[in-house]
Amino acid sequence: MVTSLSRSTFKDLLALAHDLADQSRAAIRPHFRKQMAVDNKAGAGGFDPVTRADQGAERAIVRLLRSRVPEHGIIGEEYGESRSEAALQWVVDPIDGTRSFITGTPMWGTLIGLLHSGMPVLGLMDQPYTGERYWSGEAAAYLREAEGKPRRIRTRACPRVGDALMMTTSPELFEPGDETEGFERVRREVRMTRYGGDCYAYCLLAAGFVDLVIEAGLKSYDIVALIPIIERAGGRVTTWDGRPATSGGRILAAGDPKLHGKVLKLLNR
Amino acid sequence: MVTSLSRSTFKDLLALAHDLADQSRAAIRPHFRKQMAVDNKAGAGGFDPVTRADQGAERAIVRLLRSRVPEHGIIGEEYGESRSEAALQWVVDPIDGTRSFITGTPMWGTLIGLLHSGMPVLGLMDQPYTGERYWSGEAAAYLREAEGKPRRIRTRACPRVGDALMMTTSPELFEPGDETEGFERVRREVRMTRYGGDCYAYCLLAAGFVDLVIEAGLKSYDIVALIPIIERAGGRVTTWDGRPATSGGRILAAGDPKLHGKVLKLLNR
Repeated sequence: MVTSLSRSTFKDLLALAHDLADQSRAAIRPHFRKQMAVDNKAGAGGFDPVTRADQGAERAIVRLLRSRVPEHGIIGEEYGESRSEAALQWVVDPIDGTRSFITGTPMWGTLIGLLHSGMPVLGLMDQPYTGERYWSGEAAAYLREAEGKPRRIRTRACPRVGDALMMTTSPELFEPGDETEGFERVRREVRMTRYGGDCYAYCLLAAGFVDLVIEAGLKSYDIVALIPIIERAGGRVTTWDGRPATSGGRILAAGDPKLHGKVLKLLNR
Repeated sequence: MVTSLSRSTFKDLLALAHDLADQSRAAIRPHFRKQMAVDNKAGAGGFDPVTRADQGAERAIVRLLRSRVPEHGIIGEEYGESRSEAALQWVVDPIDGTRSFITGTPMWGTLIGLLHSGMPVLGLMDQPYTGERYWSGEAAAYLREAEGKPRRIRTRACPRVGDALMMTTSPELFEPGDETEGFERVRREVRMTRYGGDCYAYCLLAAGFVDLVIEAGLKSYDIVALIPIIERAGGRVTTWDGRPATSGGRILAAGDPKLHGKVLKLLNR
């Protein structure tokens, strides 16, 4: 067992994570691909479909957590933090990939993660439009595609940088200077780079279709849920300086741990 | 009626296009997200899942066309050209967005277009994984989502460059120099740029979620099927010098014709 929780506790918490995802899916789905007037620049307090979906899903998730596990902490993108002293902290981002959502692209996802004493122990990513759900079990990672049965996913072997398929959300993620130069050093070496992705890219890595995801400027709630999925599928994810990815920042995920080591060096040359 | 074909002929040809897409979907779907060893660099003659899917779908499409309309011409990515003297030419790309397909991303599509005396008169884009299908009717464009009913789609009004949501497949599409500079002039002015997309981006534009798609280096079969979908949804698509997009090259698509005119100037400043 890779988590510090008892087996029965883990099972209950995973079931709760699925319930949370079911609720958030129901709250978000009606708002996806709803027409938005192009001059609607509503910010966080506005009424565009993304904000409605984001807030509705977070409300549903918080309500369920409050009723089922009132003693747990919650860290949410919109919600902020509560019960930060609790050992178990849920880390929630109802719509990771706002740009994807706005443009009608089905590559955003709902991220639900769980920290135990600051360590990511459980993670789930749900894509309501395609019906995909990726999650970490106790010692493996799984994918259920629309109407299918869950199947175990694994990262693939890819020890050589020159063979790697890389994804990143946008070249605009990287600050000019060291950050862009680091990314470019890797981009020039890999076999192919595919843009667009957000949380979806990390899940494709866990499922063995993508070998590298490199990003920057991530928040804790952008990555916590993905860490157990990637690691239990056989991959490795850290910051660019090799530290735990839990706090976000500059992120390097690799399906093959050997590849991770090589790219880490390349980023920091 | 916007096409030069009689109404009954158009209806028959559209029904045929749907039949072709059904066949190609069945041929492609089993190959998507099948594990590929990372050192499989098979080219056009190889046996990677993309090549298998591509060739299988094109074979199915060509077979159906040969049996139903043997007098028509066919232009296919793999297939080359046949009966190039015929007035009606089918233009087929079974998998537009190979990189997307390889990485397990559901943003590739099957493109089936029809030229009448060199003019695009009918187009269809099918996405087998999400179950989406976009196509042009005689005077309107339609989208059917998995298990849903077809609904009419329209581009949205967006006369101002500063309000526009733009998509492009990759910054690597553009050659250094004029091409990159033209794209960058637009990118700096728009509200947001989203990367990744291929044919899917043009369809999201036709459906009113994206305002601009700018690309370069396209082939005829990458764009012919999309032209009637975009135009009958209310948008405009040309090359960067304002000529018909039919031959591919540098492509500018806009949901709002007013926006198209402004961006054309910006690209050529």
